[in-house]
Amino acid sequence: MRIGVDIMGGDFWPEAPVSGAILAQQQMPEGVKLVLIGDEQIILSEFERQGADPKGFEILHTDEYVGMEESPTKALVQKPASTINVGIGLVKQKELDGFVSAGNTGAMLVSSILGLGKIDGVNRPTIGVIFPTITGSYSLLCDVGANLDSKPETLYHFGILASTYMKHVLKVPNPRVSLLNIGEEANKGPHVVQAAYELMAASPLINFIGNAEGRDIYAGKADVYVCDGFTGNVVLKFSESLYEVMNSRFAGDEFIETFNFERYGGVPILGINGISIIGHGISTGKAFAKMVQTAVEAVQSEVVEHFTSAFKSIHE
Amino acid sequence: MRIGVDIMGGDFWPEAPVSGAILAQQQMPEGVKLVLIGDEQIILSEFERQGADPKGFEILHTDEYVGMEESPTKALVQKPASTINVGIGLVKQKELDGFVSAGNTGAMLVSSILGLGKIDGVNRPTIGVIFPTITGSYSLLCDVGANLDSKPETLYHFGILASTYMKHVLKVPNPRVSLLNIGEEANKGPHVVQAAYELMAASPLINFIGNAEGRDIYAGKADVYVCDGFTGNVVLKFSESLYEVMNSRFAGDEFIETFNFERYGGVPILGINGISIIGHGISTGKAFAKMVQTAVEAVQSEVVEHFTSAFKSIHE
Repeated sequence: MRIGVDIMGGDFWPEAPVSGAILAQQQMPEGVKLVLIGDEQIILSEFERQGADPKGFEILHTDEYVGMEESPTKALVQKPASTINVGIGLVKQKELDGFVSAGNTGAMLVSSILGLGKIDGVNRPTIGVIFPTITGSYSLLCDVGANLDSKPETLYHFGILASTYMKHVLKVPNPRVSLLNIGEEANKGPHVVQAAYELMAASPLINFIGNAEGRDIYAGKADVYVCDGFTGNVVLKFSESLYEVMNSRFAGDEFIETFNFERYGGVPILGINGISIIGHGISTGKAFAKMVQTAVEAVQSEVVEHFTSAFKSIHE
Repeated sequence: MRIGVDIMGGDFWPEAPVSGAILAQQQMPEGVKLVLIGDEQIILSEFERQGADPKGFEILHTDEYVGMEESPTKALVQKPASTINVGIGLVKQKELDGFVSAGNTGAMLVSSILGLGKIDGVNRPTIGVIFPTITGSYSLLCDVGANLDSKPETLYHFGILASTYMKHVLKVPNPRVSLLNIGEEANKGPHVVQAAYELMAASPLINFIGNAEGRDIYAGKADVYVCDGFTGNVVLKFSESLYEVMNSRFAGDEFIETFNFERYGGVPILGINGISIIGHGISTGKAFAKMVQTAVEAVQSEVVEHFTSAFKSIHE
């Protein structure tokens, strides 16, 4: 298995992705090769600076990269040799099994979706985030920003994708899927959410347990929370900032630390033909290592094949 | 000044509203009379049970009340003498200056908006909630559930209402108004939010500082955060549950306690011709006392008159 790592993405490159790759390699199962994508001289200097040995890694040189503030669509056209385009291109050609980057989120989304293509039958690919719960389990909230105005069918598809991910990658048996809403009853909330409720309740593909409210997320009522990307994005960023606030007061507390999103390191874009993981700009080495680990687990679980067969069965 | 208190609303009546009224009376400025609305026998027994003296309170007897799970519109018609209808009716007749209830939220909203009427020019009245910030200041997030699909003009009106409230009731000079979105730039987010951005940026009535993200709420970037009621409701309930989680681990910690929504006791429905405050069902005596205090401050500040003149100036 070969996993590509974008060395020229995120707020702290090359330090964070290089240290993440080093950390990941120490923890990797046999037979996983990490391919570092970026400027070879910069990469080698960074290994030297960190007192580490680049042997065992493959380095794929390119000196073009997408800045964090650049327009994603322009970058796609004007920087064909950017680390992101190179990484996604290699996933498409099956020369990489997965690719991780903490670079420009929009560029990663556009490049991944256009480059790898949607899985047949999927309305819109989605990005999600792992939330801890007070029961010690994990849940997946999606969408968190890829799709702002989500139609009922799109929300339903998020449910199938997230449920499939939880089942096969995080090994949650029969994941409980819920719809984030402002009340528990089926007739609560905006029309679009009510219509999504009907689709999800009627589906044999997911274990739909009904609506969930904001208060249910940390309580662990469900394994999957589905919402539009606007709501999900606001909740995610709000939650991240709360962790920072709590951490400023109770630094190092193990309980508070479970709310640290860095621990969970990103979820692949769900619904495309390949494994592509977008990390936070602020990702540290630890977060990069976790992203690599997630990519390995996603490949091992053959989650893309599971997505494909789930959506095939919808349209049969 | 006379403030009505619904004694037959909330999850813990009559205990919580009665103890709240007792607490409030001890803290009230001269000349404020509390009018307790509910079953007189039950109220008097509860005073006795709490070892308190009902003298100094006015009791307005009615034995009809709206259950927490009842349909608001049905209750409005079928229970004309419910505590909520009686309280709002007295505000309308200027026999009360304000009314507070922790009862059925929908019934309070419907009864308040229909009974007191929208202020001329206001698209949709709104309910908001006070959020603490790490800087020690308070901000107002609205809407938190009264309006699910909000149009650009509606969001703009929320901004005017919330800004006016912060300025006159909470005495924040020139409140910074922001629009909750998924990015800082004007062209981010759903079309409806982009259009609201334009309206708000062009308005002389508010000090619009642009978009805010979920992470900015606790950071105290703005004094007002405007969003649709779906997003606001999810964020509010999520935040409340986080307080509970943190409180279960760090019970009694003063820092954690600042995140306790009970402290802030509710904000009046903004945009109607009168002061009507909806509390949480779970309100304790302390929360009731805080609601009463908020009602008094809202009346003293003549905030309804300030709303009215703001919306008059829009349409001139």
